[in-house]
Amino acid sequence: MHSFQELIAQFIQQFDQQRFPDQPSTLYNAASHILKIGGKRIRPVLALMGNELFDTIHADAWQVGNAVELFHNFTLIHDDIMDKAPLRRNNPTVHTLYGEPAAILAGDAMLIYVYEYLNRVQSRYKQKIVSVFNRAAIQVCEGQQLDMDMEAMDPAQVKYDDYVSMIALKTSVLLAASLQMGAIIGGGSEGNQGYLYEFGKNIGIAFQIQDDYLDAFGDPEKFGKQQGGDILANKKTFLLLKALELCNPAQRIRLQQLLDTAPDDKVAQVLELFHDCSIDSWAEKEKERFQQKAFDNLESIAVLSSRKKPLMELADFLLSRQH
Amino acid sequence: MHSFQELIAQFIQQFDQQRFPDQPSTLYNAASHILKIGGKRIRPVLALMGNELFDTIHADAWQVGNAVELFHNFTLIHDDIMDKAPLRRNNPTVHTLYGEPAAILAGDAMLIYVYEYLNRVQSRYKQKIVSVFNRAAIQVCEGQQLDMDMEAMDPAQVKYDDYVSMIALKTSVLLAASLQMGAIIGGGSEGNQGYLYEFGKNIGIAFQIQDDYLDAFGDPEKFGKQQGGDILANKKTFLLLKALELCNPAQRIRLQQLLDTAPDDKVAQVLELFHDCSIDSWAEKEKERFQQKAFDNLESIAVLSSRKKPLMELADFLLSRQH
Repeated sequence: MHSFQELIAQFIQQFDQQRFPDQPSTLYNAASHILKIGGKRIRPVLALMGNELFDTIHADAWQVGNAVELFHNFTLIHDDIMDKAPLRRNNPTVHTLYGEPAAILAGDAMLIYVYEYLNRVQSRYKQKIVSVFNRAAIQVCEGQQLDMDMEAMDPAQVKYDDYVSMIALKTSVLLAASLQMGAIIGGGSEGNQGYLYEFGKNIGIAFQIQDDYLDAFGDPEKFGKQQGGDILANKKTFLLLKALELCNPAQRIRLQQLLDTAPDDKVAQVLELFHDCSIDSWAEKEKERFQQKAFDNLESIAVLSSRKKPLMELADFLLSRQH
Repeated sequence: MHSFQELIAQFIQQFDQQRFPDQPSTLYNAASHILKIGGKRIRPVLALMGNELFDTIHADAWQVGNAVELFHNFTLIHDDIMDKAPLRRNNPTVHTLYGEPAAILAGDAMLIYVYEYLNRVQSRYKQKIVSVFNRAAIQVCEGQQLDMDMEAMDPAQVKYDDYVSMIALKTSVLLAASLQMGAIIGGGSEGNQGYLYEFGKNIGIAFQIQDDYLDAFGDPEKFGKQQGGDILANKKTFLLLKALELCNPAQRIRLQQLLDTAPDDKVAQVLELFHDCSIDSWAEKEKERFQQKAFDNLESIAVLSSRKKPLMELADFLLSRQH
């Protein structure tokens, strides 16, 4: 068994040796850029850990790892075009550096390479792996579309449960599928695959709630982002949508006014309103609720609990970031 | 054995029954739009014909057909965004109707569905099919990038042979791979697969030369496009690049001037210059040269010549459009 830190280090070493062809350089420089600016490489490590939960790590899990990491980076390139984002991890986005056409095409080529990696896995479970992967990949696209659809809506029109479903599609199903694909390679039963999938999905949602919480209430020095960035951008978050649901009519009017205008102290005023509606403590409980679901899922998996330790540690690491 | 017309009719009937999910409608309406505006459906029929050259058509060839037709339409959506094209087959392009974000995402989702179709083929040749498909798919992306790179160059800088290579990647390799995948399903040998692949590649290049020729010298009423559209747009074509190579220094200076300016009679002047350098007769010979290569490839395939008849007829149909 390996700790998640060991697997991350091993994966990064292996992944950094993967290379696109040299030509056409306009295409492959654009594709390489997104990989060079790093990332936590969580998804591939989930595939490795899903495998190792049931058996020693098979070479196929590395191929699945390469596939899911490449897919994730493909989505980042295309999402950044759609969102007109100038920066990603403090670096210029691919389309900013190479133009939109090359960025669209680099993403397309990366998505094809994803399936080159998946095509290397053993034929005895390739059908199942590709099927699980495709379902998640399509859901990620659907999640991105729902996100854009909601982006165009008035926050008061967006239902909280629809928002949770969108976040699950956009960010959690790929984590869940990575774990499941690892479990398939490791020989885990359908039932255990299902629990592991749900574990990943719930961890992903808990992580996103935490992310929204930290953006509002976190220590900007420790969190590394401007406090209240989501509030300034009128971004729909777990906090905002729940606040619109929980607050009283007067508070709702005030919140709506703050969204429609942009006073200098908008962040402070919205945070005060969040406090008044107890959104901060609600968010902590909501995160814990999904975290608990995840741990219950993990508990249900029929393997020795000692084998689950690395996954527990990874979940703790992801869900106990400094406020 | 079926004629290509019979197979096109059967494929269209089957393909039109394929459906995307209903929701999110913004995503799938955009994806459906490109399929609704039609197309010749040549690529899937090549897959069916590649199969039937060696054996009766297997269900897998229909799945490969769905995959290549969907892939082709995905490239149209993304290419139209890159080229900022307002129209496709006399209809508004997907991004014009649904916006660039939905068009990018619809293409992405379609590319994932391509692999859902490929995942349905039998495991005994799935690895090989996906490998052949991926190579062609990557080459199509590389061809599109090379096309954009050349677009930004002065025509005099673009070498004719590089242009032929780019056209082969962008338009021919998918035709070739469609035939080869059919041959794999039909049980054709590696050698015969290779001949069939080359047949498709050469037919594709001959078709493109004919397309460029018709744009310049074709009867606009029969061809259905404005005569000299490529010339007006300063588009790099087989004709223009060869003219720059074959004409004398004085003609080259005149041609360059016509490219740099836009006199009212630009089309007439360029066509006159093409005539003076015998580009029209060169193009007819160049098309015949690739057509002959294709027929030699087909001749080399070790099956009864009667089985090759539908492919001969398709080639004749594609390469004898009215001038």
